[in-house]
Amino acid sequence: MKQSALFTRTIKDAPKDEVSFNAQILIRAGFIDKLGAGIYTFLPLGLRVMNKITNIIREEMNNIGSQEMLMPALIPRDLLDKTGRWDLIDVLFKLDGVDKKEYALGSTHEEVVTPTIKKHVISHKELPLSVYQIQNKFRNELRAKSGLMRGREFLMKDLYSFHKTQEDLDKYYEIVQRAYFKVYERCSLLDITYLTYASGGDFSKYSHEFQALTEAGEDDIYICNKCNVAINKEIIEEQSVCPVCGNKKLEVKRAVEVGNIFKLGTRFTDSFDFNYIDKEGKGQGVIMGCYGIGVGRLMGTIAEVRHDDNGVIWPEEVAPFKVHLLALQTKNEELNKWAESVYDNLISHGIEVLYDDRDVPAGQKFTEADLIGCPFRLVIGAKNLNKRMVEVKRRDRDEVDLVSENELINKVI
Amino acid sequence: MKQSALFTRTIKDAPKDEVSFNAQILIRAGFIDKLGAGIYTFLPLGLRVMNKITNIIREEMNNIGSQEMLMPALIPRDLLDKTGRWDLIDVLFKLDGVDKKEYALGSTHEEVVTPTIKKHVISHKELPLSVYQIQNKFRNELRAKSGLMRGREFLMKDLYSFHKTQEDLDKYYEIVQRAYFKVYERCSLLDITYLTYASGGDFSKYSHEFQALTEAGEDDIYICNKCNVAINKEIIEEQSVCPVCGNKKLEVKRAVEVGNIFKLGTRFTDSFDFNYIDKEGKGQGVIMGCYGIGVGRLMGTIAEVRHDDNGVIWPEEVAPFKVHLLALQTKNEELNKWAESVYDNLISHGIEVLYDDRDVPAGQKFTEADLIGCPFRLVIGAKNLNKRMVEVKRRDRDEVDLVSENELINKVI
Repeated sequence: MKQSALFTRTIKDAPKDEVSFNAQILIRAGFIDKLGAGIYTFLPLGLRVMNKITNIIREEMNNIGSQEMLMPALIPRDLLDKTGRWDLIDVLFKLDGVDKKEYALGSTHEEVVTPTIKKHVISHKELPLSVYQIQNKFRNELRAKSGLMRGREFLMKDLYSFHKTQEDLDKYYEIVQRAYFKVYERCSLLDITYLTYASGGDFSKYSHEFQALTEAGEDDIYICNKCNVAINKEIIEEQSVCPVCGNKKLEVKRAVEVGNIFKLGTRFTDSFDFNYIDKEGKGQGVIMGCYGIGVGRLMGTIAEVRHDDNGVIWPEEVAPFKVHLLALQTKNEELNKWAESVYDNLISHGIEVLYDDRDVPAGQKFTEADLIGCPFRLVIGAKNLNKRMVEVKRRDRDEVDLVSENELINKVI
Repeated sequence: MKQSALFTRTIKDAPKDEVSFNAQILIRAGFIDKLGAGIYTFLPLGLRVMNKITNIIREEMNNIGSQEMLMPALIPRDLLDKTGRWDLIDVLFKLDGVDKKEYALGSTHEEVVTPTIKKHVISHKELPLSVYQIQNKFRNELRAKSGLMRGREFLMKDLYSFHKTQEDLDKYYEIVQRAYFKVYERCSLLDITYLTYASGGDFSKYSHEFQALTEAGEDDIYICNKCNVAINKEIIEEQSVCPVCGNKKLEVKRAVEVGNIFKLGTRFTDSFDFNYIDKEGKGQGVIMGCYGIGVGRLMGTIAEVRHDDNGVIWPEEVAPFKVHLLALQTKNEELNKWAESVYDNLISHGIEVLYDDRDVPAGQKFTEADLIGCPFRLVIGAKNLNKRMVEVKRRDRDEVDLVSENELINKVI
C-alpha cells in the first residue's frame, strides 16, 4: 500500500502513563493506540501483524485436526455456577442484564464449550475431538502495565480437546506441544521459548507453560540447560531439580508465558454430565484438555525481543509488509515514475510492499522505516537513478546492497 | 472437508425458548448454538458463513478506500461522558473495573474512533479519511427474541469517515450507499432491500437505513414503488409522501434493518476538540459520517428469506461450501474409491466441498444436505457407478442432471 494513503503517523512520544516498552514502541510506530490500561486499539499496521500471527496459529491448529468455531464473550452466570467458577475466578468482569440475569465476560471458555460439544457428541465413535476459537478474552486485572503482554481485553486462541481415555489425551497433549513450538518457530521466538513445567492440578503431575525469555516478563523460570526445559516458581518451591534429568543446577531467568496447556481430566465434563456411550452401551466420562496462546501477547513479546534502538525488527512471517520501498526526492518526476514501476513489479510478484511515496525529507523516511521495522528496506534515490539500481538493506543487518530491478525480485521474494 | 470429521450434527428440535425461525433452522442445521437470549456460538459451518459475509463486506469497504482497524469492546466511561452518551444510550452494558473505573461494552464506537483519529490527523492534507472495523458489539437488550437478527452480542462492521466539508461528506455518503448495495447484491438480498429514509438528527434532513423485506423483521417500512425507495415509521408520521417523487401511494411492508448510514456533522468531533488546520493555518471542525452493517444480522436475514420447508438455500457467495458431495452405499469399496477421487478432483479445481463420507442411510444424507443448504448437491450412487455418472442438483431448483466427471467440473466451477 502507498504510505500516503495510510492514515497513521509515527508518534514522537508514547503516552506518559505507558510504562511497557512493547506498547511504547508500537504506539510510536503507529501500530496501536492506547485507550486505557490494558486496552488497546489495533491500527492498520498493528492489525496486519495481529492477522499474520492469527493465521499462523490457525494453520497450525487446523494441521492437528482441530475445528474452528467462535463462542460469545457474554457467559450467563448459571454456567459458571455449575463449575463453581463464578466466585473462583478473581479476574471475571461481571455485569447485569436488563433481563435480570447476571453475565460474565469470558476469561476462558470451558463452561461454554463443554455443554455445547455435549449437544453434538454422544457416541464413542465421535471421540476424540478437538475444537478451537480465536476470540477476545476479558480480565478485570488490577495491574495492567505490561502493554500487550497483559491486557484487560486481548485476543486469544483457546483450544479444547475431548477424549475417551487418559492415554489418548496424553498423546494429543504432545501433538499440541509440537504445534505450539511450530507457532513459536514461525514467530521467530523458538530459540528463547522453553517448555516449562508447572503445577498440574488434580489430574496430572504437571501442566506446561511455554515461557519466552525477556526482561519484560512477569515470571521467573528455572532453566535446565541440559534438557532445554524449565520449571516455574510454583514447582521450584516443591522441588529444586529438573523434572526430566534431575539436574540441580538450574539457571533463573525472567520470562513471559506465551502459551499454556493443561490436562483437565473430567473436572468440567462432570459438572455438565457430559458422558459418551461406549461400545458396551455404558456411559463414560469424557476426558478433556485445554490449550491457550495469547495472540496480542505474542505480538508484544516479539516487539520486546526483536528490536534495536531504532525500532522493531519484525520476523518475516509476521511483518506488516515484507518490503518497505522508499522513494527519495519525490519531486523528481522520472524517479517517481520508476519507483512506481518498481512498486507495481513487486506487487505483481505477490510481495507485500509499503511504498513511501510521501513528499517528506529522506531522513524522516529512513527513521520511520527503521521504527516500523519491515524486513527489507529498498531505497530509490537520484544518485542511482540513471543506472536504475536499488539499494537493498535487511532490517536485521547492516550491509547495503546495490542491485538491479531483476536481482531485486530474487532478493526479496 | 469430510463430513465424518465435522463434529456437529443436525439437530431434530431447536430449543423451545427459541422463537425465531432463523435461529431455529440454523441451530437444527448445526450452524449455531444458543447460549442465551441473543447470545450464540458459531459452530464450524456457521463460522464459515460468517467469514464469507465478513470478507464480502471487507472487500467492498477496501474498494472505497477505507482502512481496517480494530477497536476494543471495553470503553472507559470518561469517553462516553464527554459526549453525554453514558446516560443516553439505553442499551449499554456497564461494568466496574477493579481499578475503580467504570467501563461500557461498545454498542457503537464514535467515542473511541474520534479521539484515536485525532492523534493521527492534523492537517487538511490528511482529510478526507475513512476507517472501519469488523468487531463484536454488545447491547443490553430487554427483548432479544429475533435470533441472529437482534443479538446481545453481535459482529458488526462500523465505518467512520472524516471530512473537511459537508459536500465532501455528502459525496462519500453516496459512495458508501453504492458499496452497501454491492454487499446486499453479493448476499443475494438486493431484490428485497430498500434504501429507506429515516430521521436525520441535527445535521441532515434524512439519514438512511437499508431495509430488507421479511415478515421476521421488527420494522414497518412504506415503499414507493415508483422510486424503489422507502420511508420508515418515524418519517411517515411527519410526511406521508415519497421524499423523492411526492407519491402518496405508499405500500407498508415488514422489514429488517440490514444497514444504516448517518451524517454526524461535528457532533462528536466537537466533543473531542478534533479540528484540522486549513490552508490558512486556521482550525476547522472535522465533519463526520458513520455507517453500519450487522454481519450476524445479514446471516439471519438470509436464512429468513432464502429457505424452503427442507432447509436453508445459501446464495453461492456466502454458502459454507459450494458443493455437498454425497456418497451413498459407503460399504461399496469401488464406489467409495470413486467418490474420493471425485472429491479430490473438485478440490484440485479450487471448489469448496463438504463430502458426506459417513456410513449413514441415504435418506438421512439427502435430508441433511437440504437442511445445510449448499448450492450444489452431487450424488454418487451404485446405480450410476458403472457409467461413472454423477447426479447434480442445484439446491434452488428441482431438476436433477446426470453428468460425467468432466462435465461436472464445468457445471459447478
